[in-house]
Amino acid sequence: MIRHLVSIDDLSLEEIQALFAWADRFAADPRGQSEMCRGMIAASVFYEPSTRTRLSFESAMLRLGGGVLTAAEMTSSSAVKGESLADTVRVVGGGYADVIVLRHPSEGAARLAASYSPVPVVNAGDGAHEHPTQTLCDLYNLHVERGHIEGLEVVLAGDLKYSRTVHSFAYALARFGAGIVCVPQPGFEMPEYVVRRLREEFGVEPVRADTRRLGALAGESDAMYLTPQKPHQLSLFTDARGWELQHVDALYMTRPQTERFDQGDGGGGQYMRLDRRDMAAESLRDAVVMHPLPRRDEISSDIDEDPRSIYFKQAARGVPIRMALLSALMGKIELPGGSPQPVESWPVSVGANPCPNPSCISRTEPRHVEPRFVLASRQPLRARCAYCSRDLLYSFVGCSTTQRYHPPGSSALRKVRPDHLVFLSDADQAGLLEFFPAGG
Amino acid sequence: MIRHLVSIDDLSLEEIQALFAWADRFAADPRGQSEMCRGMIAASVFYEPSTRTRLSFESAMLRLGGGVLTAAEMTSSSAVKGESLADTVRVVGGGYADVIVLRHPSEGAARLAASYSPVPVVNAGDGAHEHPTQTLCDLYNLHVERGHIEGLEVVLAGDLKYSRTVHSFAYALARFGAGIVCVPQPGFEMPEYVVRRLREEFGVEPVRADTRRLGALAGESDAMYLTPQKPHQLSLFTDARGWELQHVDALYMTRPQTERFDQGDGGGGQYMRLDRRDMAAESLRDAVVMHPLPRRDEISSDIDEDPRSIYFKQAARGVPIRMALLSALMGKIELPGGSPQPVESWPVSVGANPCPNPSCISRTEPRHVEPRFVLASRQPLRARCAYCSRDLLYSFVGCSTTQRYHPPGSSALRKVRPDHLVFLSDADQAGLLEFFPAGG
Amino acid sequence: MIRHLVSIDDLSLEEIQALFAWADRFAADPRGQSEMCRGMIAASVFYEPSTRTRLSFESAMLRLGGGVLTAAEMTSSSAVKGESLADTVRVVGGGYADVIVLRHPSEGAARLAASYSPVPVVNAGDGAHEHPTQTLCDLYNLHVERGHIEGLEVVLAGDLKYSRTVHSFAYALARFGAGIVCVPQPGFEMPEYVVRRLREEFGVEPVRADTRRLGALAGESDAMYLTPQKPHQLSLFTDARGWELQHVDALYMTRPQTERFDQGDGGGGQYMRLDRRDMAAESLRDAVVMHPLPRRDEISSDIDEDPRSIYFKQAARGVPIRMALLSALMGKIELPGGSPQPVESWPVSVGANPCPNPSCISRTEPRHVEPRFVLASRQPLRARCAYCSRDLLYSFVGCSTTQRYHPPGSSALRKVRPDHLVFLSDADQAGLLEFFPAGG
Repeated sequence: MIRHLVSIDDLSLEEIQALFAWADRFAADPRGQSEMCRGMIAASVFYEPSTRTRLSFESAMLRLGGGVLTAAEMTSSSAVKGESLADTVRVVGGGYADVIVLRHPSEGAARLAASYSPVPVVNAGDGAHEHPTQTLCDLYNLHVERGHIEGLEVVLAGDLKYSRTVHSFAYALARFGAGIVCVPQPGFEMPEYVVRRLREEFGVEPVRADTRRLGALAGESDAMYLTPQKPHQLSLFTDARGWELQHVDALYMTRPQTERFDQGDGGGGQYMRLDRRDMAAESLRDAVVMHPLPRRDEISSDIDEDPRSIYFKQAARGVPIRMALLSALMGKIELPGGSPQPVESWPVSVGANPCPNPSCISRTEPRHVEPRFVLASRQPLRARCAYCSRDLLYSFVGCSTTQRYHPPGSSALRKVRPDHLVFLSDADQAGLLEFFPAGG
Repeated sequence: MIRHLVSIDDLSLEEIQALFAWADRFAADPRGQSEMCRGMIAASVFYEPSTRTRLSFESAMLRLGGGVLTAAEMTSSSAVKGESLADTVRVVGGGYADVIVLRHPSEGAARLAASYSPVPVVNAGDGAHEHPTQTLCDLYNLHVERGHIEGLEVVLAGDLKYSRTVHSFAYALARFGAGIVCVPQPGFEMPEYVVRRLREEFGVEPVRADTRRLGALAGESDAMYLTPQKPHQLSLFTDARGWELQHVDALYMTRPQTERFDQGDGGGGQYMRLDRRDMAAESLRDAVVMHPLPRRDEISSDIDEDPRSIYFKQAARGVPIRMALLSALMGKIELPGGSPQPVESWPVSVGANPCPNPSCISRTEPRHVEPRFVLASRQPLRARCAYCSRDLLYSFVGCSTTQRYHPPGSSALRKVRPDHLVFLSDADQAGLLEFFPAGG
Repeated sequence: MIRHLVSIDDLSLEEIQALFAWADRFAADPRGQSEMCRGMIAASVFYEPSTRTRLSFESAMLRLGGGVLTAAEMTSSSAVKGESLADTVRVVGGGYADVIVLRHPSEGAARLAASYSPVPVVNAGDGAHEHPTQTLCDLYNLHVERGHIEGLEVVLAGDLKYSRTVHSFAYALARFGAGIVCVPQPGFEMPEYVVRRLREEFGVEPVRADTRRLGALAGESDAMYLTPQKPHQLSLFTDARGWELQHVDALYMTRPQTERFDQGDGGGGQYMRLDRRDMAAESLRDAVVMHPLPRRDEISSDIDEDPRSIYFKQAARGVPIRMALLSALMGKIELPGGSPQPVESWPVSVGANPCPNPSCISRTEPRHVEPRFVLASRQPLRARCAYCSRDLLYSFVGCSTTQRYHPPGSSALRKVRPDHLVFLSDADQAGLLEFFPAGG
């Protein structure tokens, strides 16, 4: 079976650890791997520019001795003649390349591509959705710098609202059992849906955080601690002010994602800026400073020479970890340990596409895209778009065998098979689809 | 002598067959050829974007172990500083690359480039003129799917007016002795000049075709059968309705070339659309469905999984056939059998450039381009632009030794040497050039 | 220590000669070097398009068996998200590539990049400032065609005002001891600052030149001879009309750099045009004709076939000389002989950035750029911007230990240590910085 990397969840923790081990080997001799993928080709298929990401992948492939095809400006070429993404990946993956690195502005594009591509697809960013190799790179840096990830205390600072990178990193940290301290730019707090997913999928408990020891950086920020620990353990360390931050292992700064700002965003105060004075805080004594780059002004250049500033090393380590990933996807190295269970999805067989996300690939590219949903949770009942992961909005849930519908909390729904569940926006839609109220 | 591929006519049938045999070998082990062209470089020099074509060539070169230089946006670089195409190919071919893959919006650009380049030039599309590797790829697909080309019945459907691809394919099919069934979108019939060339150069006879057995697809289409057979043989199979289509070996769909539409085109009805219902027609029972891609809506996705739909395979096979072509042009493999006789051309020594095509390279790029013409036929007397192949328009023909001119049908012209013929637009021009009417 | 090539002055004459010897070897077998740089990667980082230059470097790297990363349109990608040049080179040089080939519209960009990059930086053009590999290529052509450079008589013709290429070439010719004959397009004479540097740094003496033997080409041009010879020797060969041009070894034509024209430029007469008639001049009997390309109309195509026209060969030789350079910078070959002494520079510690050049990188990219100056000469006292090489404008010079300031010619300044010199724009600025007039 072809493996893709659409989401960081497509890799088990064991597989991620195995990739780290390979990346270590590649990093030790990056110029000595040129026989690894001789004869293989990677295609960069980019529907929006992202030079840094593209070069990192292409460098990895070249270091492995493979060849690179670059389509860095897809929107100005075949796409103009009206070709669907599904067709493009079938052509490029059909004979041109052995792996496709895809960048696309629509959420879910990589999942769609993976469902059609004859060769592995790597998601190099799909809109505001996922960018799993950035996350892999960030985790790999913690691995190199700290030797482990579980139990680390990681501060996420800045724009936590729009940064795709930070959301993915938070999920992954939670999965690895690290503690997360959110220090948002005021007005750019971590969105509720991210926190909910952290809680429901990874059992993370959010509590207020007291970040006085972080000094001026925390400022007016409404800080939060997301902990994998049991609440009763945590209570030992918290008081009315919340859990007290004492020691930071890594401080992850993000730039303001101004290109994603809504009207009304960004009008606020000065964006936070990490400088030499901040780095003098005791809690940061041996914290590494990370940043996905590019930075603007949120990290002062006066700490560039500080040995704790690893953001340039962090970018450089993107190459060996991508070498490991590409080799694995192309079957040149083996990753021990089981892969994650693929989540089941089912097509929506009735009505229009109910995905509420206007920039989901299922809406921006309707050709060759069948709307699909996965069950995110049974208690409470929730379904997600299988492409963009956005939660489905609904008022009632029907059963396709009985043609009855129920309110969401109804116990009758617990017995319905997942693929028989029909999510209904309202009673009118239910009527149109010939569903009847349960007990009616 | 340097070999180029400007037109599919630059290859003899034996050479094409030899390329097929090499392509078969390369297709059997595409990743095992990386020593073939080690140290060699191909340059993609594209004056208009065509990502698919470019990637197909670059994939072929990388599979052969060669390197690739990409100039995908020539119009935004050196061309802006005013460099002529002739200079560009002399520089790129002078030391940078071992083969040039050229895409250009002007007809005849590749022929011009070939006349200056120190290394082989491959035409990857010159305006509405030729795209020989697409044709080679299409023929190769017939070879793979059917084992032979002679005697096949091939349906060409859709926009037969503007599709360069279809014209070249038709010439090549005629050369190989296949039968061609034209099923045009109404208003987009095969142009008269294409039919004339098919008749004059390849002895093809056009007759009305009865395409009822093709079902709904043929619709209102004014179908035509172009046959390499002798008319008396054909009469056995035709009645008042025309030759009856019974069995199709390949159905070649084309998209509407809206970017080339004149005003007035395309306002008409719904463009044809091949779907599952059409494919149920008995005549298509074992037809393969081809398309040069990208498609829009002219092939429904509901037949993508049909084993007769080979359009994605067709694109994939572009790589091994281009591997064969590039290796041959760079002298890495030998093609047995003689190459075609090069057609003689002569410069026009008097008056302005008489090529009637405003997008001919001899008009769009006047520097370093000497207008040249080739004699297309003596009976009737006709000359073609050596770059864009457009027929020369004229009223009289003179002889440069006698300085007499004659009407086109005059028997006196039969004795004049080709390089002494002077085509004259009218009597005024004749007078200006000091020609006198014969017998005057 | 990492070697960069920002200016041709970064290489000693011995090193340049050694590069020529390697280039000769590479030129003899360009396709046989594919093991030289296996596993290494060059990144083309271009902030403005220059396809020819980019392809020449990429061809050289591919010929050496290395890989190539192309970022040909930096302005439309990371730069848009606000990344500084300093950050970009730290990322690209930090792990993606082993050498960076940089093109940038701001003067001094390559010097800045070199000061941050962990890998060698090659300047592939920084605004109107330097383009050292073009100069290296031009010199290499003289070496190949003439066997030596010292003592040659080289005519520089055309736009000598804006052509960066011609300025760098002139400095290099002077360093090698060649004679330079300037034959400018009227209104586009060699700028005063170039002549001054030739005189001050290389001891070149400018005299009027009599170019009647050059024929029509020289026309109304106000010609000048720049000679490395001692004036008393020269007087043997000059009269009232100036030094008489008798024999030309190389004629270097340049195109009008219309993209750099100020208002008022270029309104003048017809630009000069070298044609077959000009080449009949006795003085050009065995002159080679050079041009950095692309040309427009300044060289007629009627001399393209003349064996003295080497401009296409000249471009082709850019590949082996760049192969030599890249191998040397990546440590794959050794260059005997000492490297030039690096010039000392010091940051300006007081006041605003005094560089007078508005397109200097220190002004266009203020982040991560510390203004720096180098002492260009003590007698007369002159300092240059360490990035763009533009002379600093000043009225007084202070000493940072005594806090006294002096007029520029003051003998008291001779004893001040270079790093204690403070260049002051006027008395007001001196006062603001708490300097007092000497003896006041």
